[in-house]
Amino acid sequence: MSYKPDLSGLQRGARDSLTQQLTDRFVRAIEEGALAPGDKLPTTRELAAGAEVNHLTAARVYRRLAELGYVTASVGRGTFVRSLTPDAEASHGEDWQTYALPERELTYQDQILGDAFRLAREPGMISLSTGHPSPRCYPVDALARITADVFRDEGGDAIAYLTPDGLLALREQIALRGRGPGGFTIDPEELIVTSGAQQGVDLTARAVLEPGDVAVIETPSFAGLLGALRATGARVIGVPCDEYGLDVDAFEQVLARHEVKLLGLQSACQNPTGRDLSPERRTRLAELVRERNVFVLEDRVYSDMRFEGSHVRPLRELAPGHVVKVNSLSKTVGGGLRLGWLAARGPVRERLAMLKLETDFHTPTLTQHIAARYLASGAYDQLLETTIPFYRERRDALHEALERHLAGEFSADLPRGGHHIWVTLTRPLDERALYTEAMRHGVTFTPGGAVSAERRPQTALRLSFSLLDPDELEEGVRRLARAIREVRRRDRRSVAMTLS
Amino acid sequence: MSYKPDLSGLQRGARDSLTQQLTDRFVRAIEEGALAPGDKLPTTRELAAGAEVNHLTAARVYRRLAELGYVTASVGRGTFVRSLTPDAEASHGEDWQTYALPERELTYQDQILGDAFRLAREPGMISLSTGHPSPRCYPVDALARITADVFRDEGGDAIAYLTPDGLLALREQIALRGRGPGGFTIDPEELIVTSGAQQGVDLTARAVLEPGDVAVIETPSFAGLLGALRATGARVIGVPCDEYGLDVDAFEQVLARHEVKLLGLQSACQNPTGRDLSPERRTRLAELVRERNVFVLEDRVYSDMRFEGSHVRPLRELAPGHVVKVNSLSKTVGGGLRLGWLAARGPVRERLAMLKLETDFHTPTLTQHIAARYLASGAYDQLLETTIPFYRERRDALHEALERHLAGEFSADLPRGGHHIWVTLTRPLDERALYTEAMRHGVTFTPGGAVSAERRPQTALRLSFSLLDPDELEEGVRRLARAIREVRRRDRRSVAMTLS
Repeated sequence: MSYKPDLSGLQRGARDSLTQQLTDRFVRAIEEGALAPGDKLPTTRELAAGAEVNHLTAARVYRRLAELGYVTASVGRGTFVRSLTPDAEASHGEDWQTYALPERELTYQDQILGDAFRLAREPGMISLSTGHPSPRCYPVDALARITADVFRDEGGDAIAYLTPDGLLALREQIALRGRGPGGFTIDPEELIVTSGAQQGVDLTARAVLEPGDVAVIETPSFAGLLGALRATGARVIGVPCDEYGLDVDAFEQVLARHEVKLLGLQSACQNPTGRDLSPERRTRLAELVRERNVFVLEDRVYSDMRFEGSHVRPLRELAPGHVVKVNSLSKTVGGGLRLGWLAARGPVRERLAMLKLETDFHTPTLTQHIAARYLASGAYDQLLETTIPFYRERRDALHEALERHLAGEFSADLPRGGHHIWVTLTRPLDERALYTEAMRHGVTFTPGGAVSAERRPQTALRLSFSLLDPDELEEGVRRLARAIREVRRRDRRSVAMTLS
Repeated sequence: MSYKPDLSGLQRGARDSLTQQLTDRFVRAIEEGALAPGDKLPTTRELAAGAEVNHLTAARVYRRLAELGYVTASVGRGTFVRSLTPDAEASHGEDWQTYALPERELTYQDQILGDAFRLAREPGMISLSTGHPSPRCYPVDALARITADVFRDEGGDAIAYLTPDGLLALREQIALRGRGPGGFTIDPEELIVTSGAQQGVDLTARAVLEPGDVAVIETPSFAGLLGALRATGARVIGVPCDEYGLDVDAFEQVLARHEVKLLGLQSACQNPTGRDLSPERRTRLAELVRERNVFVLEDRVYSDMRFEGSHVRPLRELAPGHVVKVNSLSKTVGGGLRLGWLAARGPVRERLAMLKLETDFHTPTLTQHIAARYLASGAYDQLLETTIPFYRERRDALHEALERHLAGEFSADLPRGGHHIWVTLTRPLDERALYTEAMRHGVTFTPGGAVSAERRPQTALRLSFSLLDPDELEEGVRRLARAIREVRRRDRRSVAMTLS
């Protein structure tokens, strides 16, 4: 039961402000025991209405009470009287922090990305929201042998400090691969080793964008990229993509209206659609960014995870002074190695190296030595030969399960590469309601809204197949179909109740 | 056409190294006009052959010339005399970037920090600016055995994705140590594993500070902390410290005039002074930050690297809701492991976990497993027993070398712990001129101005002893003393010229 404070007799225009008078009443109520530890206070809206003060005054009263250590705020639940303990610090709490920290809401992307990591292998939960590779595919024995060699040959240097650019032997290996069809990049001097591609994305966004800048992103894209662009305070505009990749006409229209600083995209096996940027679009896009001097953040993490179609050359080859390319070993050799790199030239490369130094000095030396020797061993291509059929089987299993349990209710391409299927529901429904309902049924997915810069009329879901076996994928889709039906049933009932 | 330098008459075994003699010839050729801006220098192989020196020496000559600003290297094209015209870079095609990137000067801290990493183990250079531990002290054999166990026992999980907080087994080990005199921290739930303490510093600065905020830092401090605070756009105010640590009276005066959001300090074996925060100051400081609700970023990286005096408990124990504590294994087990952690509570901890996720998902899984088992093995305390005498010997050697070569010209405490001696020159001189001159003499140091938030009338130098052997420390100080005398001689000459 919620406490109703005595709100009579407040003196407007008195020496004590209304904030002070209201605060004093709560303090008295708590100290005299009318309010006990754990009791819930009225919401700020209820208090504002009851005391006939404005909402800001009500919020100020609670902040004052929190600072004094009398109440504690529990996000999403309300404000409660604090239990008193002998420890002074405990009674003081950390509530003051809320008011001292820069205002920043937990974004939808952050929440969904956090869920994906937290629920990846949670018992009982089938996570279709986690595009992590299967640890069963990692080349553990080879890495174990190589690591023993690294310690034997390098001694203390295996774990000594490095320059921010990273180990030259590793950068040379990455550059070498760039000359083959894998197309990583070409010059070791352009490369900076990063802690996964995500750090390359985060560093590039921070190096290039300021609050008020305009950035463009493919719609849909992935939460890590969308979140990194938004975190800079830039305005992020979504541009649709179709079966040929980014819609370059639409991008040109945005360029006509805005001073675009950066474009973020995946040119091969895009996350979440699995599509490629066509050669024609690639040529036009390179011309556009060179003509208009736009930075491009080109993410290539799925470019080697290809099931069909021929290799797609990086956009960066056509505009190396404009494109910062990021890549990693996370989708193939090991996500937990946190081993990625970026390729850039000119002032932005210098800026990125400096930012890397400030951020964490450099990526761990040990994992860089391991990666250098693994790539030099030539085992990477063999690894792809065994893992691609593994993931292709799972892609097909997921697609077939969708056909079985949701026939007629969805549309989805069979992706050419990557770890995800992008599913659009034929009839829209409330995406957040479905997310919650699905979790109740023991399955999670990535809601389309969390990976799209613009609202879309359709309801879309990213379903990831890489971490699950075919029978788990089958069960996951069965649960998802049940959740979809449950949400539709509730929708019908509430429509019926409204009409009756 | 490629310039052919006069390579006759090089003196092998002369007082000046071959590198120095060759460098001087190029400098003369450029300054006298024999080499003009844009001229291409011979390749390092041509130079090595022509001058009959080895290839590394030739490469060092060009690197030295680049550092001095005489030449510029163009990847894949060669080395060129630097042009003085502003549009020389235009031919490279990335000039537009300079104008597109957010304005941000390369700070003095950035430059010095970058030099320290780059020159750490550069042949011919004695780096008194690099406080890195000696790779010879790292427990390589133990880590190699442990890593083999990790791969054997964990399989693919050794390199699978984790949550941003980090491996629970590691956080439990860190928490356990917090209950002993080592005093890391106490609750695994408070901990987030970071890529070195520097990432903890960077994340905390970004989580708490906004442009326009006021932060306070000890003066002197270290470049990584000062740089991270300044990079947020906050105003950074320096507060002096003396033999008892931070001057709390001076801090209170700043609190009276400013809304201080965050205080950054090292409470034990401070970098660069090697001093501790006294128990009385610690108590008063904890009261102040709780009363005024100030965040504290407490860096403890040198707290276990103690030569004298008793253990100093963390400030965080007295104000756990206000202090974010950072620490790492970098100064003891291995700097290149990039294995650190932070301890925080309340909303700021949630903010830090989210920021860690956005930044690089999580610290590598493999190194977390290695660290967890290393700490569990109990070998950490034994490691300290063998490494502390190693570093104490070097501290004493550096202090004695200073007494020998600069007697009467400096003052310096013998530090209680850490990897540095803070040296103040009795008579001031131009610090940047000394930095450049010292590099010409083959020695570097950390200029006091690069680690101080406020200008100071004295000239001070941070000299690091951890990476060098006693004879190198001796030679380094000898070169430094020569550089100091050279700068003083030039100063006298220019004063004499002004007077004449």
